[in-house]
Amino acid sequence: MDITDFVSRSLGVWRSQRSVHHLAFAHFEQVNSVIEILPLETTDIEVMRLCQEHNIEPEKACSPFKMKWEGESDWDEQQELKGSTILVPIPESDKRGKLLRDKGYAETVTAVAEYQLMEDETFFLSTVYDRAAAEERIWFVNPNFRLRVSLIKTSSNQGVVTASFSSEIRKLS
Amino acid sequence: MDITDFVSRSLGVWRSQRSVHHLAFAHFEQVNSVIEILPLETTDIEVMRLCQEHNIEPEKACSPFKMKWEGESDWDEQQELKGSTILVPIPESDKRGKLLRDKGYAETVTAVAEYQLMEDETFFLSTVYDRAAAEERIWFVNPNFRLRVSLIKTSSNQGVVTASFSSEIRKLS
Repeated sequence: MDITDFVSRSLGVWRSQRSVHHLAFAHFEQVNSVIEILPLETTDIEVMRLCQEHNIEPEKACSPFKMKWEGESDWDEQQELKGSTILVPIPESDKRGKLLRDKGYAETVTAVAEYQLMEDETFFLSTVYDRAAAEERIWFVNPNFRLRVSLIKTSSNQGVVTASFSSEIRKLS
Repeated sequence: MDITDFVSRSLGVWRSQRSVHHLAFAHFEQVNSVIEILPLETTDIEVMRLCQEHNIEPEKACSPFKMKWEGESDWDEQQELKGSTILVPIPESDKRGKLLRDKGYAETVTAVAEYQLMEDETFFLSTVYDRAAAEERIWFVNPNFRLRVSLIKTSSNQGVVTASFSSEIRKLS
C-alpha cells in the first residue's frame, strides 16, 4: 500500500463516532460527526498555493484531498464543529513522506506533518507544533470501516494531554 | 521487543478510561476502571493446569501473568465489572505465539488467542470464538501510558459489533 491507495480508500462520506479522553481530569467527551473526503487535482489552485507556501514543487504532490466535517460534541453544544481543510501528500518513498495541511480547525498556521505507512497498513502521522505535538494512527478494518487514534502531546513529546478514538463507518447512499 | 519485554512493561496498576462504541446504534459507553497486572511463576499451579487443558507442555509457557480489574460503567451502574483472569503466552518465535486465557468475564470457556508483536511494538491479539471474533491492539506511548483498541466482530470476521478504546495511566503510588 502506498499513499495513493490510502487516500483512495479514504475517499467518500463517513459517519464518525469519536471519544475524547481528557486525561488530566479523566473526562470523557463524545462527538458525532459526518466527514467527507474528496479528491483534488494536483493542478488545483489551492494545492499549488499550499506547495508554494512550503517551497515545494507542486509536481511532487500526490493524491491531494479535501476533508470536510460537521459535528456535535456533548461537551459544548453551542460550539459548532464544522470546517474543512486541504491535505497534500509529498511522498519521499513508497512508505514515507510529508503531509502539508492548510489551517486546520485547531490551528492558526499551516502545518507540515510526517507520515509513514506501517507494515500492517496503518497510516501514522506525526505533527510538531510550537507548543504541542500530535500523533495519529488510521487503519482500515474493512473497506467500509476505519479507526483513528489521535494523541495531543506536550511539545517535549512525553506528556499526553488528550487521547481520542474515532470509529468511522462509510455512508453508503 | 519480545513477549517477555511486553509483559514486563505491562506489570503494575493502571487507571483505565475506556470508551465503547456500540456501532449499530451509535451508542457511547464509558467505563472507568483500575487494572492490576501481576507476574506469575511458570510453575504456578493455575498456569500448569491451563497448559494441561490445552495439551501444551508447561515448559513452553513464558511470562505468565494475572490480570485483575474493577470498574464502573455509565451504561449499567448496577452491573459490577470485577474479575480476574490468568494469561499464559506460548511463544512460537520472537514475534508470534499463542496466548492461553482462562475464563474471561465475557466467556464461559477458556480461549486460545494468537498474538503478534508488530514492527512498531504494537501487541496484536486475535481470538476466534464460536459465534464471534475479537481483535485487540495494545501499544505503549511511554512507560507509564498505554493504549488499547479492541474490536468485537461477527464470526465471519467482517462485521464489527463494538469498537472500544482504553487509555491506561500507570498508578504510581
